[in-house]
Amino acid sequence: MVPKSNRQVLLKSRPVGIPQASHFEVVETPLVELASGQFLVRNRFLSIDPAMRGWTNPTQNYSKPVALGSVMRSFAVGEVVASRHDGFAVGDAVVGMLGWQEYALTDGANVRYKVVDKDLPLSTFLGVLGLNGFTAYLGLTEFCVPKPGDTFVVSSASGAVGSAAGQIASIYGCRTIGITGGRDKVKVCLDQFGFDAAVDYRSPDFEERLKEAVPTGVDVYFDNTSGSISDAVIKNLANGARVAICGTASIADWEAWPTGPRVERHLLVKRARMQGFVNLDYDHQYDEAVRRLATWVRNGRLRYREDIREGLETAPSLIAELYEGTHTGKLLVKL
Amino acid sequence: MVPKSNRQVLLKSRPVGIPQASHFEVVETPLVELASGQFLVRNRFLSIDPAMRGWTNPTQNYSKPVALGSVMRSFAVGEVVASRHDGFAVGDAVVGMLGWQEYALTDGANVRYKVVDKDLPLSTFLGVLGLNGFTAYLGLTEFCVPKPGDTFVVSSASGAVGSAAGQIASIYGCRTIGITGGRDKVKVCLDQFGFDAAVDYRSPDFEERLKEAVPTGVDVYFDNTSGSISDAVIKNLANGARVAICGTASIADWEAWPTGPRVERHLLVKRARMQGFVNLDYDHQYDEAVRRLATWVRNGRLRYREDIREGLETAPSLIAELYEGTHTGKLLVKL
Repeated sequence: MVPKSNRQVLLKSRPVGIPQASHFEVVETPLVELASGQFLVRNRFLSIDPAMRGWTNPTQNYSKPVALGSVMRSFAVGEVVASRHDGFAVGDAVVGMLGWQEYALTDGANVRYKVVDKDLPLSTFLGVLGLNGFTAYLGLTEFCVPKPGDTFVVSSASGAVGSAAGQIASIYGCRTIGITGGRDKVKVCLDQFGFDAAVDYRSPDFEERLKEAVPTGVDVYFDNTSGSISDAVIKNLANGARVAICGTASIADWEAWPTGPRVERHLLVKRARMQGFVNLDYDHQYDEAVRRLATWVRNGRLRYREDIREGLETAPSLIAELYEGTHTGKLLVKL
Repeated sequence: MVPKSNRQVLLKSRPVGIPQASHFEVVETPLVELASGQFLVRNRFLSIDPAMRGWTNPTQNYSKPVALGSVMRSFAVGEVVASRHDGFAVGDAVVGMLGWQEYALTDGANVRYKVVDKDLPLSTFLGVLGLNGFTAYLGLTEFCVPKPGDTFVVSSASGAVGSAAGQIASIYGCRTIGITGGRDKVKVCLDQFGFDAAVDYRSPDFEERLKEAVPTGVDVYFDNTSGSISDAVIKNLANGARVAICGTASIADWEAWPTGPRVERHLLVKRARMQGFVNLDYDHQYDEAVRRLATWVRNGRLRYREDIREGLETAPSLIAELYEGTHTGKLLVKL
């Protein structure tokens, strides 16, 4: 049954830095009839991601900025409730750039994945079986290329990407060390995500602790932070180390280009590699990656945490909350 | 005819920093009889290389320090003049770690290459057909992996490694840009080594000139210098760029670790790779590389410059001269 109206979150004004609730407004809009080739998705979960900060800002990063007055761009997962499209039938579950809204009318161009693993919770397709899990899988398989017995280190280790990266490195047969902030997150890394060791970067003896945790050096570093955390890791690289740069979350501003210890000599003497990657470039691997990740979720080798909020109205404040780091797992909105 | 005595340059005292003539002494020593399995090489050319600085200093770098009172370690090329070794006959030409001396008595363990290309000058096997050419070849083929049409940049472009790297990149079908210091060297890059463009890093508008020279960005950077030269190149990386770190010549001291602009965000946004390499790890590729380089020297696609000094006595002052940068081509001593 197709409703007559839709509730949406629009971008009202352009933030400087991190978007706050005040930059958005919730509106009710009429739903138009489906044209041929279109289908209607009832969104069930909306995703809150760090990239959304970039999407609201005027300067182009990887993607175009969201236009003022339009629906906030967002990954979402939902079910097809009406269809005039040959490829999508009522009852199909789909993941895509469906926006902060209850219903998304689409021709399928913004759909990234049709859910085939119906036994798994829909919400997982935005996190561990979504872009976060995919990013971890991609970083590991294409850029870190770990070998069994390697010492693997990841920063933001209790986060959606970091926790998946650590567990996939474990599947590879690596010894895994997570770097995270605070005692609670250290405990999560050890107890929930099975890291062999976890180090608190807020601890005054962080550098010593890290060094103790990697007695034979770091073979692989999955970098989500840059900054002083990475500087400490890079001092401990082993010969032939691989550093995959996935994110630079610890550095708030790259406009005034920050300085840090030079990496060249470390990379040279250790014959090491440092490489940035962007998951957008690897769409063609997405379906296969999700299939593998789903197997690991089923057999308990890949665990995840979700922090699920209720209702469309909660979405506008959550990007700011994400950057505060107080959430406990992949941040989602349930509709 | 085997002589009775040998002239050698010994390391007399340990320099702090760059070794000077006063750190060495020339001595005459008796030559002992060949034992079974040994052969005697009459050195014809001695090599002067930046690595020799590290060999004289007490801290281990890639190789052990030269012991005080022993013959200065050095690559050399020469001819076998007496042999009790099945693998080496009188008249064979060999390249190896034969030391700053007229004659080298060896069991072959320090011989790296037996010269098969007898039509080419012996001296070339210490430069363009020696470790310098090999390093350029290795960096290009294993780490830069250029594609035809790529924009290729190399620092220290008029040097023994840089000039070979630029010409090999040309053979790959790249557009080549050399970075070098001073007008004379710019001219050498353009006229002798066939770079498509050359930029003087001492010029006050270096950054602008470099930017103009790489309108579509830098696909490949062969880095011999690190420091501000590299910082300027890295700002101009193209998507998917590869940076091969071969040397860090512009930075005198890594004890007090130098800082510079952080590279992580450039590498991430540009999906770029930065990788250090050390030619010692690739000995198994040496013979094949020299065979290919020799073909290019013969057909004129790989040109080189040599700065040949006469006599064993000139050797002790030449490491310092190498670091002054006043030589014009691969620095060698002819005996």
